[in-house]
Amino acid sequence: MKTKITQMLGIQYPVFQGAMAWIADAELAAAVSNAGGLGIIAGGAAPVTVVQQEIRRAKELTDQPFAVNIMLLNPTADALAQLVIDEGVPVVTTGAGSPAKYIKQWKQAGIKVIPVVASTAYARRMERMGVDAVIAEGMESGGHIGETTTMALLPQVIDSVDIPVVAAGGIADGRGLAAARLFGAEGVQCGTIFLSAKECNISEQYKQMIYKANDISTVVTGRASGHPVRSLKSPLSRKLVQMEGHIETRTLEEIEAMTAGSLRKAVQDGNYEEGTFMSGQIAGLVKDNSDCKTIIETMVHEAEILLRNAPSRIG
Amino acid sequence: MKTKITQMLGIQYPVFQGAMAWIADAELAAAVSNAGGLGIIAGGAAPVTVVQQEIRRAKELTDQPFAVNIMLLNPTADALAQLVIDEGVPVVTTGAGSPAKYIKQWKQAGIKVIPVVASTAYARRMERMGVDAVIAEGMESGGHIGETTTMALLPQVIDSVDIPVVAAGGIADGRGLAAARLFGAEGVQCGTIFLSAKECNISEQYKQMIYKANDISTVVTGRASGHPVRSLKSPLSRKLVQMEGHIETRTLEEIEAMTAGSLRKAVQDGNYEEGTFMSGQIAGLVKDNSDCKTIIETMVHEAEILLRNAPSRIG
Repeated sequence: MKTKITQMLGIQYPVFQGAMAWIADAELAAAVSNAGGLGIIAGGAAPVTVVQQEIRRAKELTDQPFAVNIMLLNPTADALAQLVIDEGVPVVTTGAGSPAKYIKQWKQAGIKVIPVVASTAYARRMERMGVDAVIAEGMESGGHIGETTTMALLPQVIDSVDIPVVAAGGIADGRGLAAARLFGAEGVQCGTIFLSAKECNISEQYKQMIYKANDISTVVTGRASGHPVRSLKSPLSRKLVQMEGHIETRTLEEIEAMTAGSLRKAVQDGNYEEGTFMSGQIAGLVKDNSDCKTIIETMVHEAEILLRNAPSRIG
Repeated sequence: MKTKITQMLGIQYPVFQGAMAWIADAELAAAVSNAGGLGIIAGGAAPVTVVQQEIRRAKELTDQPFAVNIMLLNPTADALAQLVIDEGVPVVTTGAGSPAKYIKQWKQAGIKVIPVVASTAYARRMERMGVDAVIAEGMESGGHIGETTTMALLPQVIDSVDIPVVAAGGIADGRGLAAARLFGAEGVQCGTIFLSAKECNISEQYKQMIYKANDISTVVTGRASGHPVRSLKSPLSRKLVQMEGHIETRTLEEIEAMTAGSLRKAVQDGNYEEGTFMSGQIAGLVKDNSDCKTIIETMVHEAEILLRNAPSRIG
């Protein structure tokens, strides 16, 4: 499957693996890149030396292009912005803020810059800034989200910019990829499906919760503090929902104290009671453990069949 | 465009017009049915005599099949359930509750029954009950909504039932229809795009707000009371969002008092300050006034072109 994105990045398939903090490490990213997609290392809030190690480990594990995601509001953003140049990382995706002050140096270094956007206004702003593409992410995604859904956001972003658009949110199989291509997206970014990958180093507790999830297993918390996050319903997320309904008597500080470290508790410790198990609404389609190569090739193969047979859907 | 739904209902195009309370009257429904789609009269909370008048007016305006939507939690539900039989209405869509106690008499009367569902569990329950199809409605829709988006809900519902599935939420053009068909939906239901129809009798204020809307113009209120509603950002919805953030000091009764009659105020009076202007997130794609025939034919024509050319998207 050749698209503007596969050609721009020199990858085989237009499938990105989302940058999940604490989860998207060198092993996962390299497995995705070796499978022909674009693996992405999550910079997250990790120390710069840790991200550097992950980048170097990824280079050992794959000779294919991979990306690093930088959360621009994090205090390490400046250092990471320089690190990706020093390490010769070919692609950077960005979230949570504007990459304005890094664009020039990144472009000079030949880095492809692809921000995640949750609105048409932001997509247009990024295009004017000179980025290479945008990832339009719907609110069905796991982790930090906006408010507009993929079905509503994708066509409106595509109508708003001339650069390639990658679709994210609610995509876990060939149907999602095929639909995204039909809308005019040049690729997709998937998070939740890669939680099930054999190369994804998360706790068995987390994996089992993903396999058991259905279409209404996720919940959004943090709207009260202006940082909405989607995760699986769990003891912690249920407690947060309750507390957020009584924001007068419980302070935001209390809520922050409860969530601090909760993603690590989910990913590394499999702590059911206190963990935040981030997941998209599409988790219900994720039923078993597979390797990245199988996940991507199955998705692309299904999408190709659907697109090839699409004329029969006219009836 | 022939699908299981067009064949089941004897309509030309697999496009339903959503049952918008206070809005979807005989004129709009008949215009949609005359254009080859399925027009739907919103029973809403209207008195039975009013719905009867609308049904009879629709029969005068069209000889094509049309539907009546019954909100099952409304006190008039029993009377409306009988009315559709007495008036020989060929199709009933249902929302807000279970149609269990009416299914037998409706089926005996030859009525096709198509509930709106917001989860796979409810879709399966409806299928076991013997309904003819379900409308899987994503939370990007206007008005009363669930929590799962179209992109996530549609494939999961399609995997869960064997009866035809109609996609709703975030669909306003041929791209949405084509994508829905690719997912395996047998049709689509659209609300917001029909607000722009020449045959849609809403205030000019309401129409202008729809034309000016973009991808982030809507907001969800009422989550606090368990009845989330999506509408355009407006003086009233902004006030509700504020009040819902301080639910301890403002009672739900106060909020209910503020919203009572607010949909009528939007639809009939164009009262910007006090109206609830329900709208889906796809409003940003709705830019001008057109008639139902043009809306539907343009949508179907675009979808056919996309589906015909889909094999080229493989690359």
